Order: sequence, then C-alpha cells, then structure tokens
Amino acid sequence: MNHLGAEIAEIAAGQVILRLPFRPEVTQHHGYFHAGATSAVADTAGGFAAYTLFADESSVLTVEFKLNLLNPGQGDYLEAVGRVVKPGRTLTVCQLDVWGVSADRRVHVATGVQTLIRAKPHGQGAAAAS
Amino acid sequence: MNHLGAEIAEIAAGQVILRLPFRPEVTQHHGYFHAGATSAVADTAGGFAAYTLFADESSVLTVEFKLNLLNPGQGDYLEAVGRVVKPGRTLTVCQLDVWGVSADRRVHVATGVQTLIRAKPHGQGAAAAS
Amino acid sequence: MNHLGAEIAEIAAGQVILRLPFRPEVTQHHGYFHAGATSAVADTAGGFAAYTLFADESSVLTVEFKLNLLNPGQGDYLEAVGRVVKPGRTLTVCQLDVWGVSADRRVHVATGVQTLIRAKPHGQGAAAAS
Amino acid sequence: MNHLGAEIAEIAAGQVILRLPFRPEVTQHHGYFHAGATSAVADTAGGFAAYTLFADESSVLTVEFKLNLLNPGQGDYLEAVGRVVKPGRTLTVCQLDVWGVSADRRVHVATGVQTLIRAKPHGQGAAAAS
Repeated sequence: MNHLGAEIAEIAAGQVILRLPFRPEVTQHHGYFHAGATSAVADTAGGFAAYTLFADESSVLTVEFKLNLLNPGQGDYLEAVGRVVKPGRTLTVCQLDVWGVSADRRVHVATGVQTLIRAKPHGQGAAAAS
Repeated sequence: MNHLGAEIAEIAAGQVILRLPFRPEVTQHHGYFHAGATSAVADTAGGFAAYTLFADESSVLTVEFKLNLLNPGQGDYLEAVGRVVKPGRTLTVCQLDVWGVSADRRVHVATGVQTLIRAKPHGQGAAAAS
Repeated sequence: MNHLGAEIAEIAAGQVILRLPFRPEVTQHHGYFHAGATSAVADTAGGFAAYTLFADESSVLTVEFKLNLLNPGQGDYLEAVGRVVKPGRTLTVCQLDVWGVSADRRVHVATGVQTLIRAKPHGQGAAAAS
Repeated sequence: MNHLGAEIAEIAAGQVILRLPFRPEVTQHHGYFHAGATSAVADTAGGFAAYTLFADESSVLTVEFKLNLLNPGQGDYLEAVGRVVKPGRTLTVCQLDVWGVSADRRVHVATGVQTLIRAKPHGQGAAAAS
C-alpha cells in the first residue's frame, strides 16, 4: 500500500474500495497504469474486503487470483473494488473490479476472482496456513 | 521493470527468466515479497517470453492471468519463469512460475497461467487490440 | 447441451440464462451436481451470451475460463448465468455464475470469469482462431 | 467418471492420468470433445492426484480451477494429467493438462491450475469444508 501509494476510499462489511492515484512510478511506457499496479491494488482490495468480515484478529492470505485486463489503465486514479462473494470459516472468495476514473469517464480496467484463506493471528504466510 | 527493479536473467525462444532482488520497497509487513511484486514479475516474464517468438515489431498485451501463491515470497531474490505453452498468431498462452531463491534453498512461490494477445506495432493497449 | 440436458431459460443482449434439471447422470456420488456439469453449463451460458452480441454468422470459442465452486450443487436445477462484461471485436469477457435452485432456496454454486474469441464462420476450433 | 466414461490410465504419488475415449456423447457439433468433457476429466484427474497424497480417509473438493483451451479436443481419446504442484494440510494445488491422442499425434488440448481443499471423511461438499 505504501509502496503503491493506494488509499482507502470506502469500507463496508464485505466490501472495500481503494484508490490508486496516477503517478509516474506505477505506469508503463505508454503512460497507462501498469498491469502489476492494477493487480496489486485489486488483490489488496479483496484482502481488505475479506478482513472486514473477521471478528477476531485473524489475518488473511491470498490463495490465488485471476484477473482479466479489459481496458488500458487510464485516468486520474484507479479505483479497485473488492467484494466478498462467499465468506467462509476457512476460505473466502471475492470478486475484484478495477476502474480507471477521470473527471469525465469511468472505464472498466479489470475484473477477476480471488480466493483467500484465513490465517491464525501471527501466521506467517501461505505455507503456514496450508 | 524499472519501478520493480527486476532484471533479465535469461532469454531463449519462448522462455524468459527475470530476477527481482529483495528490497524493502517490494516487501510487505512480514518481510516477504509482496503478492503484487510477485504478480508483476510473473506477468512481465510471460509477456517477454511471448515476445521472443514474434518476428516483427508486434507488441504483446496481457489478456488475463491467474496465479496461485504457493509459499511466502522469501529469499535473496525472486526468479520468475515465463514459458510459452501455446504460441499463436493472435493469442499466446504462457505458464508462469516464481521461485524464492537464497544461497541454500529454492522455494516455489507461485504458479499460474497467462493469456496474451499480439498487438499491432504502436497499438495502444487491450482496447485497441480487442 | 443435448448430452447435459440443459435448456435456455432467458436470452437478452449480452446475457443468457440456462437451466440444467437435476438428473442422476449429471450428479456425483453424494447426490450433488457434478463439478463437470456445473462447469459445462457455465461455459455454455457464457458462450451464448457472447454470441448474442454478434451481428453476423461468427461463432465463438472459449479461450479460457476460471470457476470457483462456492457451495455444493444442490437443488431441482442449476441456473447458469453468462453475462458479457466486456464485448470486443476479437475477445469477449463474460462473468459466469451458477445457482442451485429449489422451491425454497437459491444457493450460489459457482462464480467465474471466461474469455472467448470470435471465430470466422465455419472456423474449426481454437487452433484455427488463434 | 461413469457418466463421462473416463478410466484411470496411471496412478503415482501426486500424479494421476485419466483417459476419456472418444464417444458421440462427449463431443460437440464439430465432432470435437466438448469443453465440458475436457474440463470434467481435467478436474477429476487433479482431484485424484491430490487424493493419492492423503494417508487417511480424507476426501478432496475442488475450490476452483482455471483452464485454457489450447487446441480443439481431437483424437481417439483425451488424456488428462493431474499433477500436484504444492501439497498442503488444508490446500493442494495441481497443474492440469489435457492431450488429444491418436495413433500418429498428440495435441495439447488444455492447460490449467486447480486448487483443492481436504475435507474430513464423510464431509459433504465445499460448504462444509469452508
């Protein structure tokens, strides 16, 4: 998040929206947001969305995700929406959508699905969890 | 690539290996490589692998990719292997694997599959291509 | 479709709903719809949804799809919803959702994303298209 | 398996190969194996591969899978190879590959990745497990 420069725009139970402002560091040679930045912000939004549904101090790890890049990542900022489709004790599944937003338009940049696993507090990554 | 700090370790027809050295900027709070950095280096390795098979000045765009995060991204550097599984005039499919490498061990950090589309020279992103 | 025993429940521009009635042939040993039947009906719904947006006699081929199996496939029938998220001249991306429906409940059985490629009339499969 | 008509060709620790002979029931209108049949046999091969690594009477459920359809499903039979890439106490990840085999050639029909979850003996589907 710090490295990317993303910020939280909205938090609700099961849904989190992040914003990643346009900066030269997260763009590729054509001046668009890089696919890596798009993926990172989408993955993070989904992880936060899952996290909103945990009562205790569990943490959450991405098991896998799939992302279709629909349009070039243009705009003043990327808006990444993570939404829990199926909560669970062990696994949570989120839908991921990223939009490129500018004053006059809103373009669907990416859509995907993500599987997350709940890890015990102080767990140390996917290996520990699985 | 510049933002990530990755470098090319190996190029062959249909296969490219990238290295991403450990740096605080690409790690998360546990001290592991961030999933976003892992994804970005995997996606880039696959794109380069597809590119090695094009004779002309075509460029290549990621249509979609799917990545399973198998183990925490630990080590001195990440090694991302992009390998063309199915070349094609329009679409190319790559297998993606990322390893966490240190002096004494080599851990499988991620595996996945990626679909790429060949774009005309000077094409400007997925929208133009699709 | 014939082999599966699915039928069309609804067709609109960019969205198709299929129904697959419960039959012993499409269930596994626990008495649930088999994952293979769930995948087949989801994939077909997405293909039909893409097809509704083509003016000419193009056909459509699945490039790839990803499906998360959220709940056991229970109910009187499966309802598969294919919805175009991003239409394109070459590639179309659909969201896929499958529900298990009975008189008193509706369970989310699967969610996923699919990439399709438009093929020339009389094209003969993915190899010809790519 | 019964409905599909697939048979086990090879079992080893962490790898299972299934064969699905060509039959009119598993083909589509062009005379190729249907994507649904390809998916079902791939998914089953991965599930069996994971199962070979369990000492006890655990069963296994598919969490999600992603499949790229590389070439039309032609040949005398489909050969589906499920191979465990990452075993785990809770989650297992498999690589899936399907080949179309005839006397004189062997075509790569599909490649993908699958995530499976170990379920307690007598567990009844993904809902119980997650």
